[in-house]
Amino acid sequence: MILPGYTHLQRAQPVSVAHHLLAYAEMFGRDRTRLAAAKASANWCPLGSGAIAGTTLPIRREVTAKLLGFVDAKGRPQVTRNSMDAVADRDPATEFCFAAALCGVHLSRLAEDMVLWSSAEFGFARMPDEFSTGSSLMPQKRNPDSMELLRGKAARFQASLTHLLTLTKGLPLTYNRDLQDDKPPLFDAADQLILSVAVADATLAGTKFHKARCLAAASDPALLATDLADWLVRKGMPFRHAHHAVGRLVALAEKSGVPLDKLSDAAALTADQAFTKGWREVFSLQRGFAARENTGMPGPKAVAREIARWKQSLR
Amino acid sequence: MILPGYTHLQRAQPVSVAHHLLAYAEMFGRDRTRLAAAKASANWCPLGSGAIAGTTLPIRREVTAKLLGFVDAKGRPQVTRNSMDAVADRDPATEFCFAAALCGVHLSRLAEDMVLWSSAEFGFARMPDEFSTGSSLMPQKRNPDSMELLRGKAARFQASLTHLLTLTKGLPLTYNRDLQDDKPPLFDAADQLILSVAVADATLAGTKFHKARCLAAASDPALLATDLADWLVRKGMPFRHAHHAVGRLVALAEKSGVPLDKLSDAAALTADQAFTKGWREVFSLQRGFAARENTGMPGPKAVAREIARWKQSLR
Amino acid sequence: MILPGYTHLQRAQPVSVAHHLLAYAEMFGRDRTRLAAAKASANWCPLGSGAIAGTTLPIRREVTAKLLGFVDAKGRPQVTRNSMDAVADRDPATEFCFAAALCGVHLSRLAEDMVLWSSAEFGFARMPDEFSTGSSLMPQKRNPDSMELLRGKAARFQASLTHLLTLTKGLPLTYNRDLQDDKPPLFDAADQLILSVAVADATLAGTKFHKARCLAAASDPALLATDLADWLVRKGMPFRHAHHAVGRLVALAEKSGVPLDKLSDAAALTADQAFTKGWREVFSLQRGFAARENTGMPGPKAVAREIARWKQSLR
Amino acid sequence: MILPGYTHLQRAQPVSVAHHLLAYAEMFGRDRTRLAAAKASANWCPLGSGAIAGTTLPIRREVTAKLLGFVDAKGRPQVTRNSMDAVADRDPATEFCFAAALCGVHLSRLAEDMVLWSSAEFGFARMPDEFSTGSSLMPQKRNPDSMELLRGKAARFQASLTHLLTLTKGLPLTYNRDLQDDKPPLFDAADQLILSVAVADATLAGTKFHKARCLAAASDPALLATDLADWLVRKGMPFRHAHHAVGRLVALAEKSGVPLDKLSDAAALTADQAFTKGWREVFSLQRGFAARENTGMPGPKAVAREIARWKQSLR
Repeated sequence: MILPGYTHLQRAQPVSVAHHLLAYAEMFGRDRTRLAAAKASANWCPLGSGAIAGTTLPIRREVTAKLLGFVDAKGRPQVTRNSMDAVADRDPATEFCFAAALCGVHLSRLAEDMVLWSSAEFGFARMPDEFSTGSSLMPQKRNPDSMELLRGKAARFQASLTHLLTLTKGLPLTYNRDLQDDKPPLFDAADQLILSVAVADATLAGTKFHKARCLAAASDPALLATDLADWLVRKGMPFRHAHHAVGRLVALAEKSGVPLDKLSDAAALTADQAFTKGWREVFSLQRGFAARENTGMPGPKAVAREIARWKQSLR
Repeated sequence: MILPGYTHLQRAQPVSVAHHLLAYAEMFGRDRTRLAAAKASANWCPLGSGAIAGTTLPIRREVTAKLLGFVDAKGRPQVTRNSMDAVADRDPATEFCFAAALCGVHLSRLAEDMVLWSSAEFGFARMPDEFSTGSSLMPQKRNPDSMELLRGKAARFQASLTHLLTLTKGLPLTYNRDLQDDKPPLFDAADQLILSVAVADATLAGTKFHKARCLAAASDPALLATDLADWLVRKGMPFRHAHHAVGRLVALAEKSGVPLDKLSDAAALTADQAFTKGWREVFSLQRGFAARENTGMPGPKAVAREIARWKQSLR
Repeated sequence: MILPGYTHLQRAQPVSVAHHLLAYAEMFGRDRTRLAAAKASANWCPLGSGAIAGTTLPIRREVTAKLLGFVDAKGRPQVTRNSMDAVADRDPATEFCFAAALCGVHLSRLAEDMVLWSSAEFGFARMPDEFSTGSSLMPQKRNPDSMELLRGKAARFQASLTHLLTLTKGLPLTYNRDLQDDKPPLFDAADQLILSVAVADATLAGTKFHKARCLAAASDPALLATDLADWLVRKGMPFRHAHHAVGRLVALAEKSGVPLDKLSDAAALTADQAFTKGWREVFSLQRGFAARENTGMPGPKAVAREIARWKQSLR
Repeated sequence: MILPGYTHLQRAQPVSVAHHLLAYAEMFGRDRTRLAAAKASANWCPLGSGAIAGTTLPIRREVTAKLLGFVDAKGRPQVTRNSMDAVADRDPATEFCFAAALCGVHLSRLAEDMVLWSSAEFGFARMPDEFSTGSSLMPQKRNPDSMELLRGKAARFQASLTHLLTLTKGLPLTYNRDLQDDKPPLFDAADQLILSVAVADATLAGTKFHKARCLAAASDPALLATDLADWLVRKGMPFRHAHHAVGRLVALAEKSGVPLDKLSDAAALTADQAFTKGWREVFSLQRGFAARENTGMPGPKAVAREIARWKQSLR
């Protein structure tokens, strides 16, 4: 399914819904990496640190660490390496809250896209009833509540992170009672993240895209002006020249009130001699996508490869 | 060199300066891991993403990626996997600013310790002249300026992180001009971090500890009360009982105005029958440290092992 | 000029551009109050506080305060009332940065409205050339750059505020060198605020609204469903009943694919007996606005009164 | 009661406990002003704003405003002046959270002073049992828990403020469901502020200062070097010269290992000819305080005046 991709909230180039959503797959993929790193940071057993100076009792720290599951990939126990740091440290909690905050930013961007797509003006998507609210009085409204709440969660995660960073700033070693207040932000971030991901998942799963409206919005030939410049480049013209030539053509179309791809061949030649026969071939969405099959591009094969890669990696 | 370790800014147990500083080695070690992760996040070449939809020109993204040094540990090129994400993403900058912010918290805690140690009341350390300021009028003052400035930098790093998280929150895909303002916080964080680490390094390198004052502060026998409880435990008493027994002994010492280790054997027996001959052996700093040679504890061998490990890992 | 007012980015009710922009006048009016309060907080002369304990020299603090312009509305000098607070305090700077941060939020909301209105999908407004950027290649684009940058400034102001709050947190009295770093956020906030207000002012001044597109978007009769419920209430029906009655009418219109105001009288009566002759009179934008002349409502007279009030207050 | 005042956590000049605590009275006085301003911001009745466009029903907004207590000092009703702003605005909540955050900074500084004063090294103050925790095992410890928790609350208030600022950033008009999440930070800030003030009040009320230890710490003659420079100035010497002359005297004292006020008259004359008879008169704490009776200075009469002023203003 094709829809316009945007920069500056202005239609820029045609992309597919799949390609657009894969951008979020990339973001959430990075979030997973960061969450895994936070988990690894917490995977060191502090038992045996005592009040701050360890203990004179004949304990075996590695044994308790192993029994409690503080082990590396090979099952070897991991114990903290400094008793004072173990008592004073709040890094894993802070790292988790950062991973949640950045994931929250990504969720808020997805939410913003969904809110826009669900507006009367865009009209690209229809969210599932369970995650929208209507009004019997204002029936034209389908409020994208779940996505708005999701957008707001970015603020809440950031607040938890701010809480922990400010809390620990400037404290002398080792334990200070201030640190007792690290639980509310940490637990709230965990609870809200689990909830947010579930809401995003279910909302997306139930969302329908209006194929015709998306396609119509993406079908302005002006969105393919870049492809036309590329066409000139492939014929040997330096990109700077090609850019100017297409600019002239576009100005011509605007002035004469004719869509870019409907200009006559003669008119095209007045813009630049290079607009020889066949220049109109670029005004095909199918051609445009087919020419973008390199890694990371929106061509259907490239997109299919990425989907396959993600399915594989999530298996 | 021995000095008191603190919890709640109250003297808790004797530790060594080396053990105390090794706590910071742990923190900075984790900071390195996080900075390396941020670097890895940035190690994906976005070239070929075009405006947002890639390009129809016959480029080879892997070749430019390799030439520009976007390669993994085995020298294989790394290219971004989604052109829209590549244009919209600011994760590496945000991740770096977080790594700087958490490192800033660690630096601020070190700075706080140094400011305290440099006060007339603690009197444990004397910072180098180049990193202190005096006053010809108030000559009793040696202001630990470099450490105060360092403590304040934690706020500056956090501000940069806040800047990026709020900047990117709620933006629709893909590029929006808001993102142009990502450079000031990113560059400032990098500049200030490089500066901060250099100042911390040079200040610590030139700091002298007042051995006698540190030792005197650590020599209150009450700081070894925990060791006495451990002593009882090793004789077979449950810890809860041992705790109460030592509590009674301590109360006795307080009431009679005698240091804990100077109570008579007879008096000790009134606190608990278990204070048999030899109970005073725990009041030796040397013994206390020698009994703490497990991983992460402040015993001299354990500390030496950690120093060796750090030297090895930094080679 | 009429355009739709939104909740949840869904068209809710018709309002006027003037009424919409007056909402921002209210916000900026409050910002002025807060900025004035921050200025008043700074209007206390600290001279004579000495290092922290005043001075033994026979100075007259009130005289220097007056000469330097630290005076109240009646010209009486204002001097700080505690020398230690005067040395340690950073409240005025922090208060200013907060006032800037909240003003930044308001500017970011205005910017968001402008970005939306400038999109192809909304198409309500056209920003001046000097504050947009185009592209000769992608001529369909008129990027609302100034508004995107403005939206991003909210993050920058918030960063300055975060900087100051974290910087001063937990510092003992009185002066600590950390405080030297209060200038960068304060000065940056002032510079950026002056710049932001100038850009917002000039961009708005040069913006043209597309009257026809705005009106068309506001002309869906469904946006007047609330007025129809009010019409029933004025005839004596409890609001809860009126709400349900209109709901049935709306459902009828949806089912039969007829605009709400084009339903036959007979059909209307099947929804509720109360839809007697004249029920269609509410489907007039003119009537709807004329019925909203209470304070704060979008009726043309009410709006004119508010504009007059603002002009008066800014004289 | 006299104790040292600090800059850079270095003893700077003698002040009184009352003068030190009055610095906090100033801060909390400003906090009250800010909290009152936040209350005033909330004192505008939004009733009658409808969904966003007011209502066509014949209501009288001023009447409901008055009945609900939204009135100015003279009892006149206050109604919001723009229905869209009334629906979209979250300024009062944000302003309150800022007032709480800055008050939290002040509380955190008081807490830091108390934590320092309660340490073995300073030993200036003893907090009440109800707000400290001890340990039967480590009886030397009296942990200033209430003050540590108070110090940490600054982070929590700042988090609430961050939450609201980020939440509202970049939202289009008017209501968006994101705003529903404004309650947790607002209510938490209110609850925690009430709690924090109560804890600070009760802890201070029960704190005992160790008069002798405070006085001893403040009695280093070097803390009066500034007074000696002032003495020279009053005899006609430019301050810059006086500063150098005292600097030489101080260096002399340091070199000969004699307290500043015990140098012989002959020795003093070698530092500067101006050290004529009577130069030692400045080394009296009583004299030093008596010479500081200007507004805001630590002289006993000036302090008494400020206490009287505060009592009056709080009546």
